[in-house]
Amino acid sequence: MSKNVTIIGAGLVGSLLSILLSKRGYKVNIYERRSDMRKENMSAGKSINLALSDRGWRGLQKAGIAEDIKKIAIPMYGRHIHHKDGSTVFQPYGREDQAIYSVSRGDINKKLMDLAEHQNKVNIHFNMRCLHVDRPNMKSSFENSENGKIVHDETDLLFAADGAFSAGRLAMQLQNDRFEYNQHYIDCGYKELIIPPGEGGSFKLEKNALHIWPRGSFMMIALPNPDGNFTCTLFLPFEGEKSFLNLQTKEQVSAFFASEFPDAVPLMPTLLEDFFKNPTSSLVTVKCFPWTFDNKLALIGDAAHAIVPFYGQGMNCGFEDCVVLDELIEKHKENWTGIFPEYQTLRKPDGDAIADLAIANFVEMRDKTADPKFILQKKIEARFSAKYPDKWIPLYTMVTYSPHIRYSTALKEGARQQEIMDKIMDLPGIENKWDSEEIESKILTML
Amino acid sequence: MSKNVTIIGAGLVGSLLSILLSKRGYKVNIYERRSDMRKENMSAGKSINLALSDRGWRGLQKAGIAEDIKKIAIPMYGRHIHHKDGSTVFQPYGREDQAIYSVSRGDINKKLMDLAEHQNKVNIHFNMRCLHVDRPNMKSSFENSENGKIVHDETDLLFAADGAFSAGRLAMQLQNDRFEYNQHYIDCGYKELIIPPGEGGSFKLEKNALHIWPRGSFMMIALPNPDGNFTCTLFLPFEGEKSFLNLQTKEQVSAFFASEFPDAVPLMPTLLEDFFKNPTSSLVTVKCFPWTFDNKLALIGDAAHAIVPFYGQGMNCGFEDCVVLDELIEKHKENWTGIFPEYQTLRKPDGDAIADLAIANFVEMRDKTADPKFILQKKIEARFSAKYPDKWIPLYTMVTYSPHIRYSTALKEGARQQEIMDKIMDLPGIENKWDSEEIESKILTML
Repeated sequence: MSKNVTIIGAGLVGSLLSILLSKRGYKVNIYERRSDMRKENMSAGKSINLALSDRGWRGLQKAGIAEDIKKIAIPMYGRHIHHKDGSTVFQPYGREDQAIYSVSRGDINKKLMDLAEHQNKVNIHFNMRCLHVDRPNMKSSFENSENGKIVHDETDLLFAADGAFSAGRLAMQLQNDRFEYNQHYIDCGYKELIIPPGEGGSFKLEKNALHIWPRGSFMMIALPNPDGNFTCTLFLPFEGEKSFLNLQTKEQVSAFFASEFPDAVPLMPTLLEDFFKNPTSSLVTVKCFPWTFDNKLALIGDAAHAIVPFYGQGMNCGFEDCVVLDELIEKHKENWTGIFPEYQTLRKPDGDAIADLAIANFVEMRDKTADPKFILQKKIEARFSAKYPDKWIPLYTMVTYSPHIRYSTALKEGARQQEIMDKIMDLPGIENKWDSEEIESKILTML
Repeated sequence: MSKNVTIIGAGLVGSLLSILLSKRGYKVNIYERRSDMRKENMSAGKSINLALSDRGWRGLQKAGIAEDIKKIAIPMYGRHIHHKDGSTVFQPYGREDQAIYSVSRGDINKKLMDLAEHQNKVNIHFNMRCLHVDRPNMKSSFENSENGKIVHDETDLLFAADGAFSAGRLAMQLQNDRFEYNQHYIDCGYKELIIPPGEGGSFKLEKNALHIWPRGSFMMIALPNPDGNFTCTLFLPFEGEKSFLNLQTKEQVSAFFASEFPDAVPLMPTLLEDFFKNPTSSLVTVKCFPWTFDNKLALIGDAAHAIVPFYGQGMNCGFEDCVVLDELIEKHKENWTGIFPEYQTLRKPDGDAIADLAIANFVEMRDKTADPKFILQKKIEARFSAKYPDKWIPLYTMVTYSPHIRYSTALKEGARQQEIMDKIMDLPGIENKWDSEEIESKILTML
């Protein structure tokens, strides 16, 4: 039986995967391109906080660190919308007890690495850039970026968990006929900015919410951090009238923020400095197939299905990959000839679905959250769902709080719900009778 | 002014491009991965003959070898359909004088290489595998497969003309943020077979036609070669009831051909030998963007837009790339800052269009050519077009015989025509009144 596993990438998914595999007796070697973030005063890559929701919690529970993480996670119970005129409104994400959690990517990753190394059977090798994977012989080579030395690895099973631009995937792709591959960039980029804490670490905006400044074709969002900071992210087209291309000078940036985000500007004392210091990054969706090769190698996490961040599901989906895989190891009693085919058959439609849902949610966040008609629709759905919880689970709830519902099912069910709601919202005078029995029974007949 | 050009790939497109550029005074180095096919008893890669049509002829005319090639090209005036019961029917491709030409890929490529090397300013380096392109510094490196030596190249302009699996494209892609990339395989593969000549080099099938055995989900085709051979290609699903997967034994292959292509079997004495000797190859479509980088590097031909072969436009489209580029060099007076942006803006929609048309034509060839309703539609269109040549050019004629009409225009116009024809074909009793004035005026009002 194969008991040696190589994982490329010690990110969130690679680290969690190593823990689950080592608990089943596998000896794991992880090769990570970057240096050990635990030893550095690090900025943790581009996106410093993430929204953890139920699918992600399942992964952390399996690893046994859910409680640890919960202590440093900030629940966000809904969207706090900031209109251009300075007015704000709160839109709950679900029921009162339902929240997504703002967590530090670095904190989770470090804890997962610590735990992985405590397994005894896991070794993480840092500063190791993947050069090549020799598929038939299960040999891979890595270059140590500190001393230039080439390290050779030979293994029984190999996972590429090295993100959207996976070197492992590329190596397998080039050795595989009929590899379906699609990478697509949306025309918006993003830039991280900051709202520092107030005196004594106080939060300058409502702490327990995800803040959105929806402006139609673009938006800014802000997520709380434990020290009182908010990490702001501006999502903006690269080109066009309102775009990064037209924000080249301090004057342009100041004027743009003053006009678009007037309530945020006073809270962002380092805005200009941050804007020109921080990179403008792009947003990619990667879809590919197969995810497994020769029943010995597999893609997992972003390497298999990189998605845009607008549903807050990137990490959650990657952790769910690990959970599903772990369940399949159990089900197939470590027979990888059974595990791998089922893993990719099961997860591919879900990866595709969350990719599409994430793209769609960008439109919802930047545009629809400011639309009274959309807000009314959400109220009608929430009311109906509260009364008939077996008949109607809102799409956001299915994706975020319902790990037992597959992403692909949520996508299909969400489309069916939207068809019904389109008809409901078209009814004359819906604004006045949205909470009437008439509407309720209309929905019931359409279901 | 930049006068040094590097081209990766000495295939059909790379060779033609080198000739056009050298005629404008550029010094060209071509690096070709394979050995010099002129020195070998070669099988010329996978597909040994091609259908040359008007867009391709324009390229050969520009290079000045159209007349040479015409002497060894076999005109095909239509499709010769072979039904399962052994009956056959001829479907003309256009007017009586309109033909596509069966040519040998090897012959054209060799003549283009000869001509390129006669330019004095063109050097072709064989056995050179592209390892890396350093975009910012316009340096590339190649490994000589004969002696293992690494060759370094530095240039002013670089073209990747190295086909569907372009190493040049991969190198640029990995250095480019926001590179749109999609590769898609259809679920059919192909295998080449042969119908040898009869006594004294006679043709065993009608010489001046493209032969098709349409069988719904699959088909065989045959193109004539000057020596009396026909190159047959079987296009068949990889998996499923009738598939390559189910043709594993000699018995299976014999039974399949006897049942599906009874009239061809007696003409194929080496069928079984060829079937198990020749590879089963896959069919990829590649779409990507941008096609140019830094106004110094560009993709051209299959490297920019690999398409499936069913419209016979792969080479023709690649040659048209060269013609368009040559015209833009003229128009912009060698200002590459003007040439490259217009090249990709102009050609990308046409590359996408012919890719989609080629996929659609597979369905037409394998399925519709056997459908009486489809044949009737083509007759109605031909009749109408003959009477109103300014109002209706059939789609096949636009793509194949009308280089002044862009592929993207043909695609749009073809869709509009299909909408009209769908309504015409739905008319009760269309079989009996297809050539009536009623039908003619109905089409006229819908146009």
